Amino acid sequence: MQPITSNALESAESLAALAEPAPGVAKLNANENPFGPSPAAKRAIEESATYGSRYITNNFKRLAEMIAERHGLTTDHVALSAGSSGVLTQLTVAASRNGHILMPNLFWDTTCKAAERQGAKLERMPQTQDFAIDIDGMLERIDGTGLVQVTNPNNPTGLLLDPARLRQFCIAAAKKTIVLVDEAYNEITEDPDGNSMVDLVRDGHSVAVSRTFSKIYGLAGMRIGYMISTPEIIEKVEQYNIGNYVMNQAGISAALACYEDEDFIKRSRQEILEARQIVEDGLKANGLDYIPSHTNFIFVNLGTLNAENFRVAMKERGVIIHGIYRDYTHYSRVSMGRLADVRKYVENLPKVLDALRQ
Amino acid sequence: MQPITSNALESAESLAALAEPAPGVAKLNANENPFGPSPAAKRAIEESATYGSRYITNNFKRLAEMIAERHGLTTDHVALSAGSSGVLTQLTVAASRNGHILMPNLFWDTTCKAAERQGAKLERMPQTQDFAIDIDGMLERIDGTGLVQVTNPNNPTGLLLDPARLRQFCIAAAKKTIVLVDEAYNEITEDPDGNSMVDLVRDGHSVAVSRTFSKIYGLAGMRIGYMISTPEIIEKVEQYNIGNYVMNQAGISAALACYEDEDFIKRSRQEILEARQIVEDGLKANGLDYIPSHTNFIFVNLGTLNAENFRVAMKERGVIIHGIYRDYTHYSRVSMGRLADVRKYVENLPKVLDALRQ
Repeated sequence: MQPITSNALESAESLAALAEPAPGVAKLNANENPFGPSPAAKRAIEESATYGSRYITNNFKRLAEMIAERHGLTTDHVALSAGSSGVLTQLTVAASRNGHILMPNLFWDTTCKAAERQGAKLERMPQTQDFAIDIDGMLERIDGTGLVQVTNPNNPTGLLLDPARLRQFCIAAAKKTIVLVDEAYNEITEDPDGNSMVDLVRDGHSVAVSRTFSKIYGLAGMRIGYMISTPEIIEKVEQYNIGNYVMNQAGISAALACYEDEDFIKRSRQEILEARQIVEDGLKANGLDYIPSHTNFIFVNLGTLNAENFRVAMKERGVIIHGIYRDYTHYSRVSMGRLADVRKYVENLPKVLDALRQ
Repeated sequence: MQPITSNALESAESLAALAEPAPGVAKLNANENPFGPSPAAKRAIEESATYGSRYITNNFKRLAEMIAERHGLTTDHVALSAGSSGVLTQLTVAASRNGHILMPNLFWDTTCKAAERQGAKLERMPQTQDFAIDIDGMLERIDGTGLVQVTNPNNPTGLLLDPARLRQFCIAAAKKTIVLVDEAYNEITEDPDGNSMVDLVRDGHSVAVSRTFSKIYGLAGMRIGYMISTPEIIEKVEQYNIGNYVMNQAGISAALACYEDEDFIKRSRQEILEARQIVEDGLKANGLDYIPSHTNFIFVNLGTLNAENFRVAMKERGVIIHGIYRDYTHYSRVSMGRLADVRKYVENLPKVLDALRQ
């Protein structure tokens, strides 16, 4: 972190400088969508300054209503939190009182670890040989399970489960336990509605789906996420919240302003696909394999190279990417960013590979 | 709530209309400081729109550093959350694993109730005859206690404990359990530093102090609060958080921009004192007693009148105040607002009192 004096903090430019990557640095480590916030969301954030002194009561209710209406449900099917981390952690903690948490070995396990710090027992299911979540294996393994969780598309693999097979799994598993599907990257897939399990909530299955404004909506810093589930499960989620209002006026207003902005979502998706093509071409040109991605990140096979060494070497060249995941020591995740950022990644690929192979 | 169409939601003005009280309505129920956000905080919120797509990593760390520096402590003495509700609930949940929560009968019990939903056992200590928190009684009663909590100044009474006596209590109680002092209204008192227990943290006592940007700083809707305590207690607090980042760029930037703004704080305090004088004069003119307040709200003795009936009658006249607290059926809390708002309260007092006394 750069040293910042107190005086400098009064300058909005310095705060922006602290939030954004330094000039020339490509930040490709956090699955953010730097194409956002949308123009309407930006205007809403700016305007929120005038009512920042007011508690969020009404706008908070309105966002819950808007999400419920969009999915043909009532607000008792919706829980909101600051990013989806909150609702994910809350449900995991709640469910852990009834049994262990069954989850893939490789997925976004941050909120399960948060629940573990509060006493949850975690059970990890190995991936299949092609890195997919082994939902058949998980279904068989449900026993004394309080919750079974998948992320779809998965992070860091970018893999999407076949929706028909996932739906079968959810219906069968929901007869035995609560099924949690984290759909943080749903809107980036080719068929968001077809890939979503929200319809199972409408049908009354014990399924919970989480979504976020942090990804395609480009609002990672504004902290708005939500869960859609049955009223019984939503009640459990709310039981474990840590305050009435974890969300904020700027974020709620931004979310309300861009939730239905199909034009922005379409253009964001195009940006992401264009960036992904540039990275894929670069990886191929350098002889690297990767897992075909349905998201705004790619899990790259580095062959014999160590992903942490690769991360450090890239960082020295001003490209920030993610380090090693668990025991996948030879796989590296790169997120899509601005086109200039992903081009910088690609330009540095041959240099870093050469250096590490020497 | 007003009906809002989807199209209207794209208009920032409508979001403001939803957040602010309707024209002509005096909103005096939530201890907000409508004089905020400060000009610097407003600019920071507006600017945050440009980096709303970025996770809060750096600005988050900077805010923790700024708070630590101000109190002569290191960042492992600081926990941040979305408003102080988060850290208050987290510590209460954590401590409840070791014993019950000992607390006053009348205080801001929202976060204790949140912990209760997660299994905490609560034990309430009656106030003294003059509505004060009975810290002598609480000290004697500590037994199997995981945490003892006070709010100072207290909400809804507005009473301030004598700092020397409170300090003695904290030191003695901290030998037996964790002592939590919620100082949400500290900056509104005449001597904020003298009334604070933060120095006990510096001396290594098992004391935790919570503070918020929701009150004097006028940032209730931006959700920034914090706790200052020993590294051991802060670790417990963090163990029970529900996500890495519950705070948001707009709020963090606003907090960074106004934390040291003594001029704004001074002017806010003057606004509050002026409003308080108007309300006190109005209460006296109408023959009503009240508890002398050290905060931005007043607890009014309605005599034989019921506080819920009083609230409803005031609401019908466009004045929103708080309803009954527990079994204090004849006491009513009114918060300070804009001067026009408190004048509206005072103007309506004789009419409402007359109507209810008939």
